[in-house]
Amino acid sequence: MIIFSSEEQAIIEQYKRLKAAAGTHSPSISSLTETVKGITVKTDACFLSNPYATDLFLEYFQRDLIINKRIRDVLEFYPTQNRGIACHLEGLLGVPANNIFIGNGAIEIIQALLHRFTKKRMLVILPTFSPYYEFARSDVEVFYHTLDKENFFILNTEKLLHDIVENKIDTLIIVNPNNPDGSYIPLATLYNVLKECGALEQVIIDESFIHFAYEEDSFAIPTCVPFCAQFSNLVVVKSMSKDFGIAGVRAGYAVMNENKVSALLQNGYLWNSNGIAEYFFKLMGRKEFLTEYEQLRCRYIKERQFFYEELSQISQILVYPTSANFFLVELLDGTKANDLALALLLRHGIYIRSAKDKKGLSGEFVRVASRRLDENKLIAHALKDSFV
Amino acid sequence: MIIFSSEEQAIIEQYKRLKAAAGTHSPSISSLTETVKGITVKTDACFLSNPYATDLFLEYFQRDLIINKRIRDVLEFYPTQNRGIACHLEGLLGVPANNIFIGNGAIEIIQALLHRFTKKRMLVILPTFSPYYEFARSDVEVFYHTLDKENFFILNTEKLLHDIVENKIDTLIIVNPNNPDGSYIPLATLYNVLKECGALEQVIIDESFIHFAYEEDSFAIPTCVPFCAQFSNLVVVKSMSKDFGIAGVRAGYAVMNENKVSALLQNGYLWNSNGIAEYFFKLMGRKEFLTEYEQLRCRYIKERQFFYEELSQISQILVYPTSANFFLVELLDGTKANDLALALLLRHGIYIRSAKDKKGLSGEFVRVASRRLDENKLIAHALKDSFV
Repeated sequence: MIIFSSEEQAIIEQYKRLKAAAGTHSPSISSLTETVKGITVKTDACFLSNPYATDLFLEYFQRDLIINKRIRDVLEFYPTQNRGIACHLEGLLGVPANNIFIGNGAIEIIQALLHRFTKKRMLVILPTFSPYYEFARSDVEVFYHTLDKENFFILNTEKLLHDIVENKIDTLIIVNPNNPDGSYIPLATLYNVLKECGALEQVIIDESFIHFAYEEDSFAIPTCVPFCAQFSNLVVVKSMSKDFGIAGVRAGYAVMNENKVSALLQNGYLWNSNGIAEYFFKLMGRKEFLTEYEQLRCRYIKERQFFYEELSQISQILVYPTSANFFLVELLDGTKANDLALALLLRHGIYIRSAKDKKGLSGEFVRVASRRLDENKLIAHALKDSFV
Repeated sequence: MIIFSSEEQAIIEQYKRLKAAAGTHSPSISSLTETVKGITVKTDACFLSNPYATDLFLEYFQRDLIINKRIRDVLEFYPTQNRGIACHLEGLLGVPANNIFIGNGAIEIIQALLHRFTKKRMLVILPTFSPYYEFARSDVEVFYHTLDKENFFILNTEKLLHDIVENKIDTLIIVNPNNPDGSYIPLATLYNVLKECGALEQVIIDESFIHFAYEEDSFAIPTCVPFCAQFSNLVVVKSMSKDFGIAGVRAGYAVMNENKVSALLQNGYLWNSNGIAEYFFKLMGRKEFLTEYEQLRCRYIKERQFFYEELSQISQILVYPTSANFFLVELLDGTKANDLALALLLRHGIYIRSAKDKKGLSGEFVRVASRRLDENKLIAHALKDSFV
């Protein structure tokens, strides 16, 4: 059990007010350190990203825009329209630009899909990224299919398909790898699910964490994008904030039927990318950038595996296997998730996510992002300390 | 009459394809110069902005983010949520944050308002910024109230109110100053219109160009924002792209009834500002920045007046008086607007906007942005040349 001093209690009260305002999300580091006095964040293990990819992006940014004095061009003028930016991704994704919708972060795409193409009955797999149910229109009924922690959150497709039929679902949401548990559904399994879901209006597969998953020893990125050609109701959503560590840039895309893209662009989303996001999407078409990124992606995955082994040695917690860039951690010794998160923040400057408010999780859980090698060591050390 | 060489004709064909893809908007400079070979743009007089304000923003950007090495913070991490950013504008606007909705550019706000709060019948004043009718939901009927060029596009409120009643309008759109003609409606007139429109669901007043208008010799910025306290159906929309010359940053806001803000945030718009936009909104709260900006705004207005006098000396055109940062120019000698725009682009590297596709304008019109003093001289000179 963690006991807080009265000084710590006072800081915690400030934090709680900020958290209440942030809803079901973590307050950002900047609002946290500006609003709550007495908090210094050394390691943000709430933030789900590959920090080595951020380094790489910033190197290119510095060279291309700052040293070459092109920053004015991207900040002053209107960015290219949605369809124009989609062209930059054609080669990388291997699909025509007409099938690509560019978003101001994946969250804008999620909002657009839920508001425009959901009919009446939506199925969300729990636990999940909360906007998938929070952004549902008020006239849509949301059904839940809850994964079992006893089964390591592995999807049972038979049960899922049963729930879809029984509840006459028109929109199915799958996040793969899933957030916050990191479980992964193999492509072959998803293909079978899609085959059974032909009657649905839309199946959204969110691959925002897919760069951290693999099915082969080569670490090649698995993806459902090629399935879009066969299943016209499939929408594959992709955030760039996680794999490239650039949440402030706001960049995401989705691959979908070209009629859906046209419907969205017919009355909206004209200039929804900013100049820096447009620069980033162009960078995605440059071979040298992708080659360098690929090395850093593989390095990050290997270090995440190492972090898993370190965390697994702590007897008071259960670390769930992950294919994402974070771990869901269950506290087994009676420690409360909120207390652990606050203790790490106040005593070690380590910001982790209590999963206490996550729908569909019963027990005491925290979510810990895998960061740089040295940060991971600090996190593991601080965690061990907390249970003494 | 302008006659193009066969070489010019070939470039024009390329341009036309690009223009067709850009719909009712000008292709961006970057897509223009990348796609159309043989075009160099020296002066972008399509782009409606105060370039001196862009200089100022870039100075602060360079100092705060590049020299002080804080660029990583704004690009790596999630920006603050919508309501958090609204707090930065409370002081400047003199309204509570609960009444402020932050947009990824004003265009996102326009889309949100039209999609969410328009009921069935919307009135748009012509000529206008085309998204106001293009973004209407398919189940909304759009009515038009056309301003007379013979009356210098000055609004006749009696006729407007008559159209509102006769067509049972629920949403009224007013852009003030108006785009593309630059006409201005005094605040006292708007107040009277608002008093008569209490039964409407929403009245949208778009003040995106208001920093270039004034009613007093001091050049103080007029605004309808204070009227929001009295008229709960009033929404004041504001782009920051024009006055601050930062279209690539994507920053806008709207002041509206707090229930409308809550309705929008209930299922969307969570992280719709990027890190650079958040930095900009914070800058708006810094006194030294606003003081320096104010000087540049007044300088720009004075130079625009001077440009008006220069342009007015050209006998083949009629320059309409403006309260915005551009001039609507009518071609009186039989020259076609599209030809003039292309000739200026190909022969002088000056990019102006043909208003040929603007609904509600009959005749040959171009729209010319006021730029820096030296650029304005080049534009005036090239225009004079074109009519020889």
